[in-house]
Amino acid sequence: MTADDVRRLLESVRRGETEIASVVQQLTPMTGDLGFATLDFQRRERCGFPEVVLAEGKTADWVVQVVRRMREAGQDCLATRVSGEQFQHLAAEFPQAEVDHLARTFWLPTPGDRPPLVGDVLVVTAGTGDLPVAYEAINTARVMGANAELIADVGVAGLHRILRKRDRLAAADVVIVCAGMDGALPSVVGGLVDCPVIAVPTSIGYGAAFGGVAALLTMLNSCSAGVVTVNIDAGFKAGYAAALMVRKIAKS
Amino acid sequence: MTADDVRRLLESVRRGETEIASVVQQLTPMTGDLGFATLDFQRRERCGFPEVVLAEGKTADWVVQVVRRMREAGQDCLATRVSGEQFQHLAAEFPQAEVDHLARTFWLPTPGDRPPLVGDVLVVTAGTGDLPVAYEAINTARVMGANAELIADVGVAGLHRILRKRDRLAAADVVIVCAGMDGALPSVVGGLVDCPVIAVPTSIGYGAAFGGVAALLTMLNSCSAGVVTVNIDAGFKAGYAAALMVRKIAKS
Amino acid sequence: MTADDVRRLLESVRRGETEIASVVQQLTPMTGDLGFATLDFQRRERCGFPEVVLAEGKTADWVVQVVRRMREAGQDCLATRVSGEQFQHLAAEFPQAEVDHLARTFWLPTPGDRPPLVGDVLVVTAGTGDLPVAYEAINTARVMGANAELIADVGVAGLHRILRKRDRLAAADVVIVCAGMDGALPSVVGGLVDCPVIAVPTSIGYGAAFGGVAALLTMLNSCSAGVVTVNIDAGFKAGYAAALMVRKIAKS
Amino acid sequence: MTADDVRRLLESVRRGETEIASVVQQLTPMTGDLGFATLDFQRRERCGFPEVVLAEGKTADWVVQVVRRMREAGQDCLATRVSGEQFQHLAAEFPQAEVDHLARTFWLPTPGDRPPLVGDVLVVTAGTGDLPVAYEAINTARVMGANAELIADVGVAGLHRILRKRDRLAAADVVIVCAGMDGALPSVVGGLVDCPVIAVPTSIGYGAAFGGVAALLTMLNSCSAGVVTVNIDAGFKAGYAAALMVRKIAKS
Amino acid sequence: MTADDVRRLLESVRRGETEIASVVQQLTPMTGDLGFATLDFQRRERCGFPEVVLAEGKTADWVVQVVRRMREAGQDCLATRVSGEQFQHLAAEFPQAEVDHLARTFWLPTPGDRPPLVGDVLVVTAGTGDLPVAYEAINTARVMGANAELIADVGVAGLHRILRKRDRLAAADVVIVCAGMDGALPSVVGGLVDCPVIAVPTSIGYGAAFGGVAALLTMLNSCSAGVVTVNIDAGFKAGYAAALMVRKIAKS
Amino acid sequence: MTADDVRRLLESVRRGETEIASVVQQLTPMTGDLGFATLDFQRRERCGFPEVVLAEGKTADWVVQVVRRMREAGQDCLATRVSGEQFQHLAAEFPQAEVDHLARTFWLPTPGDRPPLVGDVLVVTAGTGDLPVAYEAINTARVMGANAELIADVGVAGLHRILRKRDRLAAADVVIVCAGMDGALPSVVGGLVDCPVIAVPTSIGYGAAFGGVAALLTMLNSCSAGVVTVNIDAGFKAGYAAALMVRKIAKS
Amino acid sequence: MTADDVRRLLESVRRGETEIASVVQQLTPMTGDLGFATLDFQRRERCGFPEVVLAEGKTADWVVQVVRRMREAGQDCLATRVSGEQFQHLAAEFPQAEVDHLARTFWLPTPGDRPPLVGDVLVVTAGTGDLPVAYEAINTARVMGANAELIADVGVAGLHRILRKRDRLAAADVVIVCAGMDGALPSVVGGLVDCPVIAVPTSIGYGAAFGGVAALLTMLNSCSAGVVTVNIDAGFKAGYAAALMVRKIAKS
Amino acid sequence: MTADDVRRLLESVRRGETEIASVVQQLTPMTGDLGFATLDFQRRERCGFPEVVLAEGKTADWVVQVVRRMREAGQDCLATRVSGEQFQHLAAEFPQAEVDHLARTFWLPTPGDRPPLVGDVLVVTAGTGDLPVAYEAINTARVMGANAELIADVGVAGLHRILRKRDRLAAADVVIVCAGMDGALPSVVGGLVDCPVIAVPTSIGYGAAFGGVAALLTMLNSCSAGVVTVNIDAGFKAGYAAALMVRKIAKS
Repeated sequence: MTADDVRRLLESVRRGETEIASVVQQLTPMTGDLGFATLDFQRRERCGFPEVVLAEGKTADWVVQVVRRMREAGQDCLATRVSGEQFQHLAAEFPQAEVDHLARTFWLPTPGDRPPLVGDVLVVTAGTGDLPVAYEAINTARVMGANAELIADVGVAGLHRILRKRDRLAAADVVIVCAGMDGALPSVVGGLVDCPVIAVPTSIGYGAAFGGVAALLTMLNSCSAGVVTVNIDAGFKAGYAAALMVRKIAKS
Repeated sequence: MTADDVRRLLESVRRGETEIASVVQQLTPMTGDLGFATLDFQRRERCGFPEVVLAEGKTADWVVQVVRRMREAGQDCLATRVSGEQFQHLAAEFPQAEVDHLARTFWLPTPGDRPPLVGDVLVVTAGTGDLPVAYEAINTARVMGANAELIADVGVAGLHRILRKRDRLAAADVVIVCAGMDGALPSVVGGLVDCPVIAVPTSIGYGAAFGGVAALLTMLNSCSAGVVTVNIDAGFKAGYAAALMVRKIAKS
Repeated sequence: MTADDVRRLLESVRRGETEIASVVQQLTPMTGDLGFATLDFQRRERCGFPEVVLAEGKTADWVVQVVRRMREAGQDCLATRVSGEQFQHLAAEFPQAEVDHLARTFWLPTPGDRPPLVGDVLVVTAGTGDLPVAYEAINTARVMGANAELIADVGVAGLHRILRKRDRLAAADVVIVCAGMDGALPSVVGGLVDCPVIAVPTSIGYGAAFGGVAALLTMLNSCSAGVVTVNIDAGFKAGYAAALMVRKIAKS
Repeated sequence: MTADDVRRLLESVRRGETEIASVVQQLTPMTGDLGFATLDFQRRERCGFPEVVLAEGKTADWVVQVVRRMREAGQDCLATRVSGEQFQHLAAEFPQAEVDHLARTFWLPTPGDRPPLVGDVLVVTAGTGDLPVAYEAINTARVMGANAELIADVGVAGLHRILRKRDRLAAADVVIVCAGMDGALPSVVGGLVDCPVIAVPTSIGYGAAFGGVAALLTMLNSCSAGVVTVNIDAGFKAGYAAALMVRKIAKS
Repeated sequence: MTADDVRRLLESVRRGETEIASVVQQLTPMTGDLGFATLDFQRRERCGFPEVVLAEGKTADWVVQVVRRMREAGQDCLATRVSGEQFQHLAAEFPQAEVDHLARTFWLPTPGDRPPLVGDVLVVTAGTGDLPVAYEAINTARVMGANAELIADVGVAGLHRILRKRDRLAAADVVIVCAGMDGALPSVVGGLVDCPVIAVPTSIGYGAAFGGVAALLTMLNSCSAGVVTVNIDAGFKAGYAAALMVRKIAKS
Repeated sequence: MTADDVRRLLESVRRGETEIASVVQQLTPMTGDLGFATLDFQRRERCGFPEVVLAEGKTADWVVQVVRRMREAGQDCLATRVSGEQFQHLAAEFPQAEVDHLARTFWLPTPGDRPPLVGDVLVVTAGTGDLPVAYEAINTARVMGANAELIADVGVAGLHRILRKRDRLAAADVVIVCAGMDGALPSVVGGLVDCPVIAVPTSIGYGAAFGGVAALLTMLNSCSAGVVTVNIDAGFKAGYAAALMVRKIAKS
Repeated sequence: MTADDVRRLLESVRRGETEIASVVQQLTPMTGDLGFATLDFQRRERCGFPEVVLAEGKTADWVVQVVRRMREAGQDCLATRVSGEQFQHLAAEFPQAEVDHLARTFWLPTPGDRPPLVGDVLVVTAGTGDLPVAYEAINTARVMGANAELIADVGVAGLHRILRKRDRLAAADVVIVCAGMDGALPSVVGGLVDCPVIAVPTSIGYGAAFGGVAALLTMLNSCSAGVVTVNIDAGFKAGYAAALMVRKIAKS
Repeated sequence: MTADDVRRLLESVRRGETEIASVVQQLTPMTGDLGFATLDFQRRERCGFPEVVLAEGKTADWVVQVVRRMREAGQDCLATRVSGEQFQHLAAEFPQAEVDHLARTFWLPTPGDRPPLVGDVLVVTAGTGDLPVAYEAINTARVMGANAELIADVGVAGLHRILRKRDRLAAADVVIVCAGMDGALPSVVGGLVDCPVIAVPTSIGYGAAFGGVAALLTMLNSCSAGVVTVNIDAGFKAGYAAALMVRKIAKS
């Protein structure tokens, strides 16, 4: 698209002959090509949020270049599962970013005001060790525009801990439950609410916990019907799906 | 609760001194005790839908007794994974029920008008063999009050089949994708929509499909962020969670 | 041991020179040799209960011969996992035996009075489909001399069902919890009692339930500390271990 | 609960109008809320022993704060699977605690005399490498008030080692057997005793030992009926359940 | 090879110019080509026993044709895992064969005297249900020329059963131990003998026995050093390897 | 597309103004919509062969309707994994089709001459039981236009069987090797040829063969570099990929 | 073979009495014996490329000795999965070699001109993290004489990235697709091309990705028929098989 | 046993009234009790070789104490899977021991002449990386009195390497084959010999090699009947069983 093309397009907007949405799509390049990466610059238009960077498995240099390219393209940039070394490289170039070392998230929004947060995502953990995953979910939901709140360490071995939160649970639009070991909490929560429950198995536990597989199977087989499941330790995915849900609610 | 108790309660309602919701809960017995079963009669109040009967693993006689007891208690009754033998016993006593032999569902609603269906649940299958699971999802979503529509056999080996439905997908509130074998379709759909995708692995396939495990793992590891997963062949759970979502939207 | 040996031994008993327990052991043959089976006739002396016959994997003829030989040896005979065909052959020869087709147990006690049942074993199931396993546990515990009682279908999706049994649970000496699918109930029960909980995973469920493996893993990873586990569908073992426990209590 | 409430409650106790047990429960806060943890302060009343801290998966700081809060609440504090770094932090603040680096346990009892140990828990290992797990079991049983004794390295490849302990085994109330590799010892022990056997698979072994899975499966399939199983390396759980058993015996 | 070639070869033998062994090899066709099968007619020369037919997975007609072709070629013919239908077809054409329906073996030797059996293979089973596998081992060892004897149902839950056979075990050249469920017996036997133990896991058991996998893992991880293992239910392989061993002994 | 559109298009072809390939694509409908199936009618243009019907998991009626619709659309129709019942329904309507009950394939070509077969695909089996899979591969390759030839039952236990085919192997363009049990044959073949080897694990075997998983793993880990693998029993896929390869060769 | 033998052979070649190919084979020693290694010096003649060194699992010294021996024998030497330490040792002795630290490959060709590269191998990755595997494939294909080109990071979550390469894909002789996580890309690519697709699962991903197993299963179950699979992270094998294919094309 | 007892016993030997073998057994203490270990001092009498120390999973101090105690008891001491740290501690106290860092074995024989080695154990490896396992087997066999010889790196991808050793193989009493990756070599060797083959899967390989599981399954499913299998990397067990075999041969 040449400068002339762009000029003609903008004049057409000024004359009210062309829909702004259509122009946005025409002016957004489809991809950012880095040789080692092909960034999807129309993810936001199609899916409601820009491409998110999974830092794990990438060199620190690759991650930095990807973030730089996204910022140049005017895209919000969330990165997850960032390692200590990657954090160091990122901090050197993007000191203004919000980082959370427990949750291993990096967040570099585009400048400007953001709309108020919507909906009510409640993130519950069975134990303290599940917190990194829970915070990955919370951070993801928030940068996507959703309210997200935490209730920590209310596993089923002491039922009164979750039962005294019954009203709080009933008020939520969607509940995310993070649990390792036996992964039993989502089934209990699912029996107390009339909204979807997104279960996140965590790798907390030992022996036959098999790095979260036991909890994953528990959740897939939940006796509570409204429970859906994401990958082990995938707080990011739970927060993402929850945000999509509450945004649908907010729009309606 | 004696007849006098009930009378006092109702008079209090008439005087506007008591909330109707509270009375409903007080008048609903908490459980239906059958010796071999303890029906949860307050599931509807807590979770928005009565307990659903998983027929598999029960004798035909047990299933019939459970349905009978639920009907007596004025509860809508959905049963899933009903066998041929169970259908025969049920048909003898409940000829008015709606049954779907392909989806293996049985539906016996309480008499009276039902509110109009809400929302837009789109159920997509990768292949023809996934249809029984898809219909279990559709039937479940509908009896829970949600609109649910089918797009069949649009797997990724012929991408144009799903791509020509792009606008239909974009309009949905939630998409359920049923796929066996490689289970790749939810990842593709997840990249085209801005709503949650509930992936249902099916047991279609052979060899290293391992009865749906291959598809399940694919879905748990989807590169599309908004994909959540349910158990293998669990059309029921996908339909249930989807209905909870669209009802939240409808209420807001 | 010749007739003379026996006579000398008995005279010694009469003179009070020999402990009766010692004579019992000397007079009990160590094994019953059938060629295809080597019955352990001193199991009762060592372990407190005669050898139990696992009928599965044996021909009907083998099972009948084993039972016959045990009866001849004056041993109580319990058989588990008995098939329909095996039941028929057994009924023809041992019409007086107690059989339970749901639990698939066969029980042929030696004649004479039995001591009163002791202790308090409580058997709880998450669902109705777990009943065959629960009854195998109950039958086993009872023939071993323990009181055993059932609470059925109180899974965690409707927590009030188990919570209203809290006092009953607190009174038990040991609780057996049978659950399939997510296998979450033992963790909840374990948090309510101060006695051991024996968890029995059942093969109820489908897809990623993997024939009880999901429930088994849940139970092995229970967040409640007092939970121990037995094999999938092993109601027999749970009942057996529970009876050993309460008999220890009764003796003390 | 205000100071006045407490005063009234205590006066009622003095007048003999209220049961002490009931007051204990009313005066114990239900939980200790730390934001990252929700301590279950009524676990002791319900289950007979305070909540135990699984140190693994927690930061050293979290563990220290949890122990501090439990001590403030007047609760005995046992922590398991403590890492070297966590031990260092704990030692700095709680030098008086009993620590066992082999068993990785930390024990900080409330001051004052403790009742004499009861019962007879016998802990047996197949090999020397199983000792850390065995000591975790022993330490747990002892802090819960049970006598616990060790017999080490008596695996089945040299049967005479366990056979010469036959009388000692026969005297126990419950036997814990820790074994890795083939996990065969519990089956042999189970055939020698009339009390329950708690089998603990350990991660000792290589190749197809699969980190304890081989031993776990052996134990779940034990041909000795009185064998129950806990998670791999879960000496804690075995000691805990054993202590619950012998306390029941001691109470009767 | 023409008739002339054969004549020249035989004359050369008569003159003592050629080794008989060499001529046998030259006169034996290398393969029997049936289109659907390529029989290895020199297996006997290389490995000491003709090719054995695994009947499972073949049509009855294929099995019959293979046996017929082997008989024509003057080869002893052993078939294993023969189904009922295959037995019927075989019986019609080879009524003189020795068949064992329990072991599912078929044996059609070439006419003529056979050398006396050598060595001492002892086959031991843990339970009665292991007998079909044990007899497959015994039959295989015997047709290969080895003495083979059975000790049945001496599992470790009643140790005295195997201990009283200690002298018999010590006399064996090789012991085959067949066991399902926990598969613990080979470890115990291995600690009592100074000869190799071939362990055969059987598919006896249920739940976490996983069709023999539990026993297989036990055996691979045996704490007794002289234990080697074959496939689940592979009595044939155990008998075959045992026969090779004792034949080596007999030759030396 | 109206009749006029078609006429204009054809006139344009006659005038040489339009490429024939382009018109073929425009005149082929993209899909055949049956409600329960969305046939991909441009698969042939994109991938070189029409969509193939996996009959397994479909009702007989569905299969028949799909075949009928493909025939109407002028597409060659191959169906695989056809059951006995499906064969019966298909035979009633398409008596002219070529069916192979061993390979479970159904082939209904469009009328007219077919081009001569090209290339040299060699299909080798380790055992006789692998033949159904081998024939599925052969039938698939042939209907796709490739020469395909069989060498049966040349497993590695009798190496001379495969070694005497060394020259035949060296001449092939691609070799398909079907093997169950240990799946060792592809590694041996891969070391003898300079063309790709497609390994097909079969479900032949028992016990730890795990329905073909053992062979699959062997093949994935082949020490011969040129070995690629397909799903268990997937003769169809091997034949398909082999045909694509030789067609590329034929075109060049 | 003595010097005289060689002289006679070469004179025979000069006289045109002997085929050069035959002499090459006679003059190439069959193996290079190093005690710890038996190099296969006729691999090139049989399979078209010399033996490739898998460096993983070998000491640095072993690798150096192997490379040295191959160079002495006039063989091209490719080594894969080379560790940092091995690279250091190799660099000290073979500074002229081409090394790729990302792909972990080492390449030491024999001196002299090489024939021009042939064919068109296209290597596609789903993500950036798959690049090391992709480069292993590219390097392997190139040293074997094939053209190989990269398209990076075009996973299915942003379909337009792969769709805009449709023409490039259609032109390839064979496509290699490297993907971790859900492994869905090969199915999509397979539906767009008429050449074989070699799918390489990578170990990119976490949780239920199981180190590449999820992607492996997806690929084995691909709904696109022309997809074959290699081991996890086996870029080498994919590149090798692809090169064999295009060389066959080039020769024809 | 007091000094008097011993004197009486020896006098009885001098008088020829007592068998020497019996006295050896009476004078050997049954166990060496170290608190953390119960050494089996009669293993040599029962099984033909003293207890072997598995160093893995033991502290260096435990290993040293065990070796010291065995030396004191006049027992040969073999330790396997010794770590670098353990070697250092052992070297400080037992400098005269034979250690092999590649095989990770430690050997401290009792002083005095040893009988000549017997039999012919041939150890074959598929690759160079299998050597540590092979040497563990060789060292074990030799210290047990057997001749053991190595053939390295003769995997099936270059068949001529193993085929040219055919005569050497045919001469062996037992062949041990160590192989990782596809584990195909034992099947090939098994088809060339008339003696037992002990297959040792090694953890060499990557991806779907699963640390030796792929090779293990290959070997368990070997199409060669005389193949038995040991645990992954269990060179020790293979060498041990092989030595037992050849000693039986030597004795006969």
